[in-house]
Amino acid sequence: MDSRTNGWTLGDLAALIGGRLDGPHEFWVRRPVRADSIDPEGIAFAERQEFADRATGVGALVVSEGVNVMGKPAIRVENPRLAFGKILHLAQRPIPIMEGIHPAAQIDSRAWIDRTASIGPFVVVEQGARVGPRVKVHAGVYIGEACEIGEGTTIYPGAVLVQDVRVGARCVLHSNCVLGADGFGFLWDGKARVKIPQVGGILLGDDVEVGAGTCIDRSTCGETVIQSGTKLDNMVQIGHNCTIGEAGVIAAHTSVAGSVKIGDRVVIGGQSAIAGHLSVGDDIALGGRTGVMQDVELPGEYFGTPAQPVRESLRQMLALRELPALLKRVKSLEAKVAQLEGKD
Amino acid sequence: MDSRTNGWTLGDLAALIGGRLDGPHEFWVRRPVRADSIDPEGIAFAERQEFADRATGVGALVVSEGVNVMGKPAIRVENPRLAFGKILHLAQRPIPIMEGIHPAAQIDSRAWIDRTASIGPFVVVEQGARVGPRVKVHAGVYIGEACEIGEGTTIYPGAVLVQDVRVGARCVLHSNCVLGADGFGFLWDGKARVKIPQVGGILLGDDVEVGAGTCIDRSTCGETVIQSGTKLDNMVQIGHNCTIGEAGVIAAHTSVAGSVKIGDRVVIGGQSAIAGHLSVGDDIALGGRTGVMQDVELPGEYFGTPAQPVRESLRQMLALRELPALLKRVKSLEAKVAQLEGKD
Amino acid sequence: MDSRTNGWTLGDLAALIGGRLDGPHEFWVRRPVRADSIDPEGIAFAERQEFADRATGVGALVVSEGVNVMGKPAIRVENPRLAFGKILHLAQRPIPIMEGIHPAAQIDSRAWIDRTASIGPFVVVEQGARVGPRVKVHAGVYIGEACEIGEGTTIYPGAVLVQDVRVGARCVLHSNCVLGADGFGFLWDGKARVKIPQVGGILLGDDVEVGAGTCIDRSTCGETVIQSGTKLDNMVQIGHNCTIGEAGVIAAHTSVAGSVKIGDRVVIGGQSAIAGHLSVGDDIALGGRTGVMQDVELPGEYFGTPAQPVRESLRQMLALRELPALLKRVKSLEAKVAQLEGKD
Repeated sequence: MDSRTNGWTLGDLAALIGGRLDGPHEFWVRRPVRADSIDPEGIAFAERQEFADRATGVGALVVSEGVNVMGKPAIRVENPRLAFGKILHLAQRPIPIMEGIHPAAQIDSRAWIDRTASIGPFVVVEQGARVGPRVKVHAGVYIGEACEIGEGTTIYPGAVLVQDVRVGARCVLHSNCVLGADGFGFLWDGKARVKIPQVGGILLGDDVEVGAGTCIDRSTCGETVIQSGTKLDNMVQIGHNCTIGEAGVIAAHTSVAGSVKIGDRVVIGGQSAIAGHLSVGDDIALGGRTGVMQDVELPGEYFGTPAQPVRESLRQMLALRELPALLKRVKSLEAKVAQLEGKD
Repeated sequence: MDSRTNGWTLGDLAALIGGRLDGPHEFWVRRPVRADSIDPEGIAFAERQEFADRATGVGALVVSEGVNVMGKPAIRVENPRLAFGKILHLAQRPIPIMEGIHPAAQIDSRAWIDRTASIGPFVVVEQGARVGPRVKVHAGVYIGEACEIGEGTTIYPGAVLVQDVRVGARCVLHSNCVLGADGFGFLWDGKARVKIPQVGGILLGDDVEVGAGTCIDRSTCGETVIQSGTKLDNMVQIGHNCTIGEAGVIAAHTSVAGSVKIGDRVVIGGQSAIAGHLSVGDDIALGGRTGVMQDVELPGEYFGTPAQPVRESLRQMLALRELPALLKRVKSLEAKVAQLEGKD
Repeated sequence: MDSRTNGWTLGDLAALIGGRLDGPHEFWVRRPVRADSIDPEGIAFAERQEFADRATGVGALVVSEGVNVMGKPAIRVENPRLAFGKILHLAQRPIPIMEGIHPAAQIDSRAWIDRTASIGPFVVVEQGARVGPRVKVHAGVYIGEACEIGEGTTIYPGAVLVQDVRVGARCVLHSNCVLGADGFGFLWDGKARVKIPQVGGILLGDDVEVGAGTCIDRSTCGETVIQSGTKLDNMVQIGHNCTIGEAGVIAAHTSVAGSVKIGDRVVIGGQSAIAGHLSVGDDIALGGRTGVMQDVELPGEYFGTPAQPVRESLRQMLALRELPALLKRVKSLEAKVAQLEGKD
């Protein structure tokens, strides 16, 4: 973190997070840190006594009542994790950008940019694009033809919106993500792979987050849809024609093939895969690296390839460890049974 | 899709796709859509009666003879999917670019650009690079030293060709792909990882497509080769010194390690992996997430880790579900056999 | 490779690599090539007789004493692979850049750039950033606020350092990698995913290499750390708050989740995954696609999901092939035992 922040007094922080201060009001801390840091100017949180015991190197702690801090300045609150989140907010510095259009940006005269939007250097905005109020478009972003960016959205350096991408309000698109590249559609005509034109677009709801390097393909026709409140981690692949429901979470390196339908509040672990044209219902959690090979509709936790209820899948995974020995046991049984049969 | 297209009359579309019109010649549709869309200005296709039955919200349909469309305007053809592809072509809008070199591009004086090529803003073309006729190089692309781009190729915003990358005719390189980064070659000298210089290049044939974010590494020496007509999806990794044959298809997140040789017409499902120095023959299909751990030469479909004929691999995958119960069954057998033996 | 290099005489190369020349001093070769190339101007190496036998198309060979080269010019050395590496070094051409700041770069007046550094076109360097001596920052790179780049580091086109990223000396950051995007941290409040601010940074030691498209997330607070000498391949994901030790190697598409601790000299095969908050000790090797689901501390080779000693994991993988037959064998045993029991 930038050491140029001035920091805050513990008194101010206690007031901010609604806690009881155990220590000097005028004690300064300059940054939130991890409990195991060596940083006398840092403030950390400790949810349990054992974490507090290890937090010998930090200047101050956020803890709940009853935790022994060995005389270290502390703010006591009911939920230290939640309270610490407020200090993290305080420490956040939006990356720099000026309101208005940077002179080194290329804006097509037929694009529309709200006057409260910020457009960084080396940004391109193509014809028919619309950039809404308080949108921040950082350096080197490409906003293609007929794209629309909703109010308050932030687009980090290097992101590409190819064409016909509509983004809702308060979204966050991280660096080098690609929205609107062609879906992967080819027909084999007996000699060659013939490209199926991909002329659809993308629709992102509000409060969607798209991770660094993540790719969402444009639809063949119509739109690939990510509904409001869903968060995608880095390097996730969303194929063409997918619809992903609201308030979901998809971790890194997950592959969602084409024309998949995912419900609301779905949580998907990293490196998972969902085969094309399948459906995953609401309130489903897939463990890391789950491979969905047929529809999953019943709410619950799934794991493995093919996806199964997590307990079954884990039981099979553990049973596999006994398989080499089992092969020997069965061989021995066969010999014994043959002997018993011979005796008859 | 951009709503500014004027659309077409059903009469014109019927003529274009060689179909029989069941409905008014002057009926306007403005865009191809999916059959389940609510869009009275949209035209969809339905391959079977059940899809036509659900297509209540669209303006018109492309169907085969005999399908009941309940009075909705329809164009009847032999192959609705193929015919619809022609309408998709009609709806395609290449992303905007002007012929010639954008004033905000940086072209080295020792580079050669065909006068029919288009170079967008913030593009860099380094010394010794050659950009052929009708090539489109979109915003922010980097074309490194001694790269060559064949006739009619399109390079989408943000792609990087580091050095010594030769690209054939009519290729499509999607946004933020990286061609020509160093292969991952290090030697352990007992203390550190010593870098093996990567001084080779890349050779792409004609009609190759490279997905968004996909990385193809330059060769140690010589060239990493992707032969004509092969299509790579998003975020595919092709290691140094590989040779990929013609007319193949490799889906997203697949990792091809270094020095792999892949034959012609190979189809590889997403998240697959091929270990270094292996060979995969012609006309082989690998299911999603297949892990190739030794050469695969016989044409056919493979799946699993290690790759096996798909039926065997699926049979093993399903058998695994019975393993926990099998462990109990064998334990019970062992008890019974011990008892039988005791009786003897 | 660029054919404009003039090449070298075998006499000069023999002197360079300390070998004994078997052939004409004045024989010119122009580039290092693979042994199976058809390139009379190329020089290749052959470690064994069988490789030398196939190297009929190259101009000259680097071989050890005793290998028969059928009269072809050859340089004889003790370790041909090592000697060839020196020729590769000779053939290396750094990608072009001029010392100083390109006029089409945007450098904040509060950034500090060493006068021996090179900054390419369309680069952005934000306030508070520091770029050290002999650093090369290629076209279109974004160096965010308060980032620091150590002496002699090279950053390839399109890389993004979002904010608070400190990079050591002699690092190599390949194209389109993203350092410092937000870690993937959200809390479910019963209705929505609430973002946990990510205000920490990244610390890279010296001699670290980061592959194309690789993403290293900034820490929640404190720093995500990659220690000196560690090399990451393309499209690797390093989650927030991780610490990766020295001299490691992580291959493509590997996912390291948040708050993972990895020791020194760890080698990780492609597409591996390490679940959040786990620890992997020093001197551990994980085979390709290993899935680490609990701490791994004992040095050695591991493989599979969950990670197990490689021999055990392979044995289980092979045993799985026998499982379908085993199910039948057990069924048959059950019938026999039932019959034997009936007879009693």
